Amino acid sequence: MTNDINEQGRTRVIIEGVQPEIDGGRFPIKRTVGEPVVVEADLFTDGHDAITGVLLYRNHGDKKWNEVPMTFLNNDRWRGEFTVNELGVAVYTVSAWVDHFKSWLHDLTRRAEKEDIALALLTGAGLVEEASDRASKGDATKLTAWVKTLKQKKDPNVIRQRVLKGDLEMLMSRYPDKRFATNYGRELKVVVDRELARFSAWYELFPRSCGAETEHGTFADCEHMLPYIAGMGFDIVYFPPIHPVGQTFRKGKNNSLDAGPDEPGSPWAIGSAEGGHKAVHRDLGTLKDFQRFIDKARKYKIEVALDIAFQCSPDHPYVQAFPDWFRWRPDGTVQYAENPPKKYQDIYPFNFETDGWQELWQELKSVFLFWVDQGVRVFRVDNPHTKPFPFWEWAIGEIKAEHPEVIFLAEAFTRPKVMNRLAKLGFTQSYTYFTWRNTKEELTQYFLELTREESREYFRPNLWPNTPDILHEYLQFGGRPAFQIRLALAATLGANYGIYGPAYELFANNPREPGSEEYLDSEKYQTQKWDLNRRDSLKDFIARVNSIRKENPALHRMENLHFFDVDNDKLICYSKSTDDKANLIIVVVNLDPYSMQSGWVELPLEELGLDPAHPYQMHDLLSDARYLWQGRRNYVELDPHAVPAHIFCLRRRVHTEEDFDYYL
Amino acid sequence: MTNDINEQGRTRVIIEGVQPEIDGGRFPIKRTVGEPVVVEADLFTDGHDAITGVLLYRNHGDKKWNEVPMTFLNNDRWRGEFTVNELGVAVYTVSAWVDHFKSWLHDLTRRAEKEDIALALLTGAGLVEEASDRASKGDATKLTAWVKTLKQKKDPNVIRQRVLKGDLEMLMSRYPDKRFATNYGRELKVVVDRELARFSAWYELFPRSCGAETEHGTFADCEHMLPYIAGMGFDIVYFPPIHPVGQTFRKGKNNSLDAGPDEPGSPWAIGSAEGGHKAVHRDLGTLKDFQRFIDKARKYKIEVALDIAFQCSPDHPYVQAFPDWFRWRPDGTVQYAENPPKKYQDIYPFNFETDGWQELWQELKSVFLFWVDQGVRVFRVDNPHTKPFPFWEWAIGEIKAEHPEVIFLAEAFTRPKVMNRLAKLGFTQSYTYFTWRNTKEELTQYFLELTREESREYFRPNLWPNTPDILHEYLQFGGRPAFQIRLALAATLGANYGIYGPAYELFANNPREPGSEEYLDSEKYQTQKWDLNRRDSLKDFIARVNSIRKENPALHRMENLHFFDVDNDKLICYSKSTDDKANLIIVVVNLDPYSMQSGWVELPLEELGLDPAHPYQMHDLLSDARYLWQGRRNYVELDPHAVPAHIFCLRRRVHTEEDFDYYL
Repeated sequence: MTNDINEQGRTRVIIEGVQPEIDGGRFPIKRTVGEPVVVEADLFTDGHDAITGVLLYRNHGDKKWNEVPMTFLNNDRWRGEFTVNELGVAVYTVSAWVDHFKSWLHDLTRRAEKEDIALALLTGAGLVEEASDRASKGDATKLTAWVKTLKQKKDPNVIRQRVLKGDLEMLMSRYPDKRFATNYGRELKVVVDRELARFSAWYELFPRSCGAETEHGTFADCEHMLPYIAGMGFDIVYFPPIHPVGQTFRKGKNNSLDAGPDEPGSPWAIGSAEGGHKAVHRDLGTLKDFQRFIDKARKYKIEVALDIAFQCSPDHPYVQAFPDWFRWRPDGTVQYAENPPKKYQDIYPFNFETDGWQELWQELKSVFLFWVDQGVRVFRVDNPHTKPFPFWEWAIGEIKAEHPEVIFLAEAFTRPKVMNRLAKLGFTQSYTYFTWRNTKEELTQYFLELTREESREYFRPNLWPNTPDILHEYLQFGGRPAFQIRLALAATLGANYGIYGPAYELFANNPREPGSEEYLDSEKYQTQKWDLNRRDSLKDFIARVNSIRKENPALHRMENLHFFDVDNDKLICYSKSTDDKANLIIVVVNLDPYSMQSGWVELPLEELGLDPAHPYQMHDLLSDARYLWQGRRNYVELDPHAVPAHIFCLRRRVHTEEDFDYYL
Repeated sequence: MTNDINEQGRTRVIIEGVQPEIDGGRFPIKRTVGEPVVVEADLFTDGHDAITGVLLYRNHGDKKWNEVPMTFLNNDRWRGEFTVNELGVAVYTVSAWVDHFKSWLHDLTRRAEKEDIALALLTGAGLVEEASDRASKGDATKLTAWVKTLKQKKDPNVIRQRVLKGDLEMLMSRYPDKRFATNYGRELKVVVDRELARFSAWYELFPRSCGAETEHGTFADCEHMLPYIAGMGFDIVYFPPIHPVGQTFRKGKNNSLDAGPDEPGSPWAIGSAEGGHKAVHRDLGTLKDFQRFIDKARKYKIEVALDIAFQCSPDHPYVQAFPDWFRWRPDGTVQYAENPPKKYQDIYPFNFETDGWQELWQELKSVFLFWVDQGVRVFRVDNPHTKPFPFWEWAIGEIKAEHPEVIFLAEAFTRPKVMNRLAKLGFTQSYTYFTWRNTKEELTQYFLELTREESREYFRPNLWPNTPDILHEYLQFGGRPAFQIRLALAATLGANYGIYGPAYELFANNPREPGSEEYLDSEKYQTQKWDLNRRDSLKDFIARVNSIRKENPALHRMENLHFFDVDNDKLICYSKSTDDKANLIIVVVNLDPYSMQSGWVELPLEELGLDPAHPYQMHDLLSDARYLWQGRRNYVELDPHAVPAHIFCLRRRVHTEEDFDYYL
């Protein structure tokens, strides 16, 4: 406060309400290369003086600030925009100042009396003279000429006319008087990811189930799956942990406590005498085999994502080597994971409160870097919410500083504020509650939250209709149509989505027991053989949806989602479009997997740029059927046993007789 | 970031979303002595560990932090509360930590197997032993005894029962392990004012119009007004500027440009050869007379508020003494206030961009201090939005550091963000748009904004139905009932309100010309003689309303305002109540000054703590009439030509035959 009188007293412009700004600038927002950052701020000053505001930004690697003008919206709100064009971290801030030349110009247009104008021109000459001191040589000459003009003893109205033509204003705008400019002070950050962070289709696969002939699949077997996965249009193949699996307290089929000698155990019980988080399970192959799989996948434009689960089986080498990284019980045993009365004796969590926490952090970070060295650039992180937030912020920050292309997906199915915090502190993508949102009301409310609230600046949803842990009742009871419905929703509501296959495309839907969300004979505890060539497989449907996604840029984003009314609660309708509305997708889904549903969809024609007087074409990209619609309300009906969704591309122009050149 | 690994790595609790917090802690919130500060925050940690959160605060003058526990609400939200009990600046912050003892206790209740419980008791013994090292001598002995108990080789269920009785928990809660506590870091401020800042009734008066016999009233004349003003129940008498008035370009009656020799001019054209902002207008009396007036007012429990208008007449001594405090035009004259084509040649604004701005700031601050020395503790600041925000923040901060009892009312009728900024940076109270909000929709929307949005933490509205600058059309055309209506609204919607009298109680309503909000023959430019004893004066009505305000604590606050439905848009209904609902006021106002209006009021009985099955009494404190109401919907009718408002005090208990002691 008392400092003000020595420094800031004449910085009269106030800058506040800067958006986007997360927690006062504590956390970055997220964008991908080529995306715009639209920045708004309240800018105002005392009295009636005009002000000028600029948005300042530096893309990653820029040494100097770039400056773009902000424009006035209303109610003291201003807006500017820049594009992030480099991977890494961009920064932006705002600066603004009282612009006496602008005020002078504004007043000049309003002055009535001749003498008043004459005097004002002399005042203006003073401002222009000052600017000439700040100007480049060439412009200084021009400005000096203007000073002379303004001081001429001609009819002041004539000179005013010349001033108001705009040349002087243009010239002056290059040399503002920034002595008393207000700088917002906070440099706000943008984590700039590659496009895959924003737009991706994931396919989760247990590699040990890929064995064509052997019981335990190998990376080589997985290579044979690549044409199949690429054929469905997925970008990312994600493997559950590929490390050696512990023996002690190994879980058997269906999570039984007594595994037989041949049972493979859960891949999440990481570590055995063979090695831990940096080793490959012997039965899957070697590190070399894994690298070959990555290379092969790259040819199919598929990236490989690894699961990073920071927990140990009792047999993990860490337990012997770093006993202080675990919690010990008074009986001299290591504390296993538990949620009394439940016990998970095959899992040892790390004790992040250990005095050796710094070594632990470094080691865990080195696990990521080890796999980065093998060519992995995408990680799905298991239960990040059970490890300290400061660890993740540090580890992700460190890794992305060296490898800004790395993508971290947070598998945190937990409370909303915890999920948001993980996204804020650095996770690139996040699992969501989509899995449990099935009705129109649930979906609408949740997706408005995801796309309208501040969290959209940092929380990138990744929608999964199923996972090896979650077989929702909707899928258990809805049959094949339920799987189509949920896939259509995930792929078009979200820009990032994923499925756990082949369970998904083969609509596996038997729970371990009634009321459970666990799969019967879950691949978590045993291998499975899947008949990928079943005639009723959803693979062609999925391929179609994914190719529609790729071809339509409107579907590459999420925050452009808008819901429209339908007079039937079993039907949901929403749109996505590019900013220029050149690509406009309208999706209608029948949420009822049992019965045909019909209703009237209501479109806001003005917002969509449609003329109520003309018909428009709705091209269903799923069925390739084309419908002529007119006006706000139009009829749809969807049979879940045929195709439970329309993915319309709106074509604005319907030809009429006037299009023929002999019409006129 | 990289610092984390050296320091903060084990502080696992996250603290975010702290409220109230204005602009990331940049600005204080406001309270008055004795008021509570309710603080909420999101507190959570990784995993399933229990946490403990505390609210830390220091009242003004406290050397050490006081600590109160926060309690869990839901969705990771916690709440704590403290009371500010000293004028000045209080501070608060939040701290939280992982509470292993709490987690241990939680798990202990859920453990099933005997061996499991036995082992857990040993783990607990370790935690208790650690706590004993932190404990006072007496408690350490008790804790050591507990360690022994926990280690006993008895039936573990028996020992568990003893633990769960609660004594150990109580003891342990005194010695938490705060090694890895997260401290929020920001110390959030509360400006603590006296009660008058929150609850006040202002009466604006031109002292020069108080002359009983002379043309130009004096402070001595004003003394005779005190019984009248006190009789109406006002707390503050506010005088427009009392300084010498300039001669140059003096304005005449009705703002004419050619003042006659005897015309007094506008009191806002401050300064003449006789003196400036620290002088008293000769015709009003001497500084001594002014001090005597203050002393006399104090006997009537009335404070005197002065108008501080930082601008000068061309004759102000500053113009000669400090020419660099003004802007000079190329013709060698001082730049007067203007808004082309309008000119205000009688007013010179200060140039706050002068190189001598530090001297200017000091001098302006000394103006306030000069009047503080004369005994003034309340200032109404004229057009603060035309002087730099940093100046006000500094000046108010400096003055309140020495004199925390001083109240500053911001007269800024301008854009919302500007008004909010002035309130944030330090103004104690603020004028509002109430003057222009007359319909039910306008009033409801605006008062929800004032009482529900974050600004309620720092923006204290002061409602004025009229000012010497604003005679709203509603008053121009609504006759005497309009004045009653607007007074009832101002006095009950707001906790702070004021009127410009005697124009108000004598319902002066002639505008200078049609369409103008200026008064005809405005006191701004001439003196007026008022007939205070007119039979139709509103003084008794005002006295009644002000006494109702004083007697009902529900009306001493603003943020406790709730609106209720009435099925007639001319009727508005709202309530205010104390936190304990012991005092519950329900106001119904007929906004139509012409016609009787009736309708059905709908009360949320449950929220008001009323039993739908029983009648309740509505005691109209204005008319002293009592009505028996029952159920949600009840009928009201209000005749503007009688009394256009009910100010009900709700009396919950209506007697029945069961109250007679011979009933049973």
